[in-house]
Amino acid sequence: MANIQQVAEKAGVSVATVSRVLNHAASVSTKTRLKVEDAIKELNYEPSMLGRNLRNSESRLLLVLLPSISNPFYTEIINGIQNTAIANSYNILLCETDSNPQRENIYFNMIKNKLADGVISMDPTVNRQKLTELAESHPVILCSEYDEGGSIPFVTIDSELAAYQAVKHLIRLGNKKIALINSDEKFLYARQRRSGYERALREFDLPIREEWIYHTRDLEFQNGVQAMRMLLELEEKPTAVFAVSDTLAIGALKGINGSGLHVPNDLAIIGFDNISFSNMTNPTLTTVSQPMYKMGVTAANLLIMSIKGEQVESVVLDHDLIIRESTMG
Amino acid sequence: MANIQQVAEKAGVSVATVSRVLNHAASVSTKTRLKVEDAIKELNYEPSMLGRNLRNSESRLLLVLLPSISNPFYTEIINGIQNTAIANSYNILLCETDSNPQRENIYFNMIKNKLADGVISMDPTVNRQKLTELAESHPVILCSEYDEGGSIPFVTIDSELAAYQAVKHLIRLGNKKIALINSDEKFLYARQRRSGYERALREFDLPIREEWIYHTRDLEFQNGVQAMRMLLELEEKPTAVFAVSDTLAIGALKGINGSGLHVPNDLAIIGFDNISFSNMTNPTLTTVSQPMYKMGVTAANLLIMSIKGEQVESVVLDHDLIIRESTMG
Repeated sequence: MANIQQVAEKAGVSVATVSRVLNHAASVSTKTRLKVEDAIKELNYEPSMLGRNLRNSESRLLLVLLPSISNPFYTEIINGIQNTAIANSYNILLCETDSNPQRENIYFNMIKNKLADGVISMDPTVNRQKLTELAESHPVILCSEYDEGGSIPFVTIDSELAAYQAVKHLIRLGNKKIALINSDEKFLYARQRRSGYERALREFDLPIREEWIYHTRDLEFQNGVQAMRMLLELEEKPTAVFAVSDTLAIGALKGINGSGLHVPNDLAIIGFDNISFSNMTNPTLTTVSQPMYKMGVTAANLLIMSIKGEQVESVVLDHDLIIRESTMG
Repeated sequence: MANIQQVAEKAGVSVATVSRVLNHAASVSTKTRLKVEDAIKELNYEPSMLGRNLRNSESRLLLVLLPSISNPFYTEIINGIQNTAIANSYNILLCETDSNPQRENIYFNMIKNKLADGVISMDPTVNRQKLTELAESHPVILCSEYDEGGSIPFVTIDSELAAYQAVKHLIRLGNKKIALINSDEKFLYARQRRSGYERALREFDLPIREEWIYHTRDLEFQNGVQAMRMLLELEEKPTAVFAVSDTLAIGALKGINGSGLHVPNDLAIIGFDNISFSNMTNPTLTTVSQPMYKMGVTAANLLIMSIKGEQVESVVLDHDLIIRESTMG
């Protein structure tokens, strides 16, 4: 393929002039423009966007870091980010970190090397120190998981309050033995949801028992199945379970199969996220609805503002408790 | 931030020399190399990868086109592509086309403009003509959906055979009235799966009745719910249903709720894809397992070979019928 030098030669102008034509600069005469355009056509020259971005110093690419695309929680957020990005002439690069620091480095270097204009991190396992360093000189927004007292702007919901309300719903239904299927408490959302769980129990003078609090390694369905099987082996079984994600709650529903227990009569279950599956289970799942699409839109808007050099503030969005068959029969 | 000119000035060498140092060229003396490295350190200069890619003419970025990330079928394929790409020092850019030609154009232009090295298309709605044109001068691989008699290499399974085997399984269980929940037959996989469905019915002299063949617009759960509700309104109801995706089959399971019918005793159901949720439903779903992870690995390997200029051949991978509760009680 022809390069810009060949176009310049053919048109009898300088490379800088060809560049000005490509960038629609006003300072080119019509005659010169036509000569360059003819040369471009004859040589079938396709200007390299890479070169143009280098000159403009913007890639129009936004990175979205996420631990794994297999949790459908991220799907709707990504839709919101994607639609907002496209509407603002940006593309998004979905970066599955797989919680692997080496992969993270690749993506951080893309930002440093101006291959992307900014990053939205949804990855709770991200290296916070490196991300904070990056955020000192590049646009970064956290979505869903964030740092308390950190310097990076975030979009999230009030996880403590949502968990408190979910557990209170279980208490009002008459449950006194309520288990928590939590993920790893190295994550802020896990600590906050546990804190909301405990606040509701304390408010009603109900026991907080360590054997009713199960921690999973991941948020896959299978982790929920395993957690429920462990809870069902306890001598004193819970009558209700609050799981910190729908994937865990759906796994828990599955883990009950074959136990002879009926949901919700013997065991009520609440999840968290309102992923689309949660309405397809049998029974359907009561859950906390995070405004996932809106979270994505908001995060993308904050990032684009930040790229433009505007000051942005963190946003806490509203959630809802969606009551379905797994608690209401 | 400092640019390459400032580094050259500070080191007292030409820009070309700095570039040679950055690219680890052998033709630079140790003394010069040290001067340049000192200047880079002092000025805190970060070489632009964009510039380097421009010189190397490779972006190390692979595009993956998919219609929507909300169908979990794509998740495992993407994992396979991602892991293979990373192992070969490539990154992937997930491009949700949303079946929107304008978005497609953005991505095609990225390839033309060398912002990405090649593309794997999993999008059955992609503009085939444009993709074929692109494939004449750029590396392109089709994954899952492909063109019969087309020129672009593909990775897929034998959809006709898989559908034939699934329907034969239903026939062997004693079903004579078997419905098909298909997607739009503008897609090759939909035509192939219908063809396998009809072959099995013909082989056992069973009727092919138009009212037992339902076409959905999309592959969302809700489309399956709707399809099943329509089938249940028929005067002569089917006793078994073959759905061309797990999302449709899971929706169909949901659509039966409240009808008083029992799965599989009154109505057996088979899906297609073996998404992780298909084992979490109640009853669990019999399905055709596509080797999704392997499809992703294979597609990525073919693309990388193609980028290197090697000749590649299309690959048809094996599938399995996974028999679970929705047909076996």
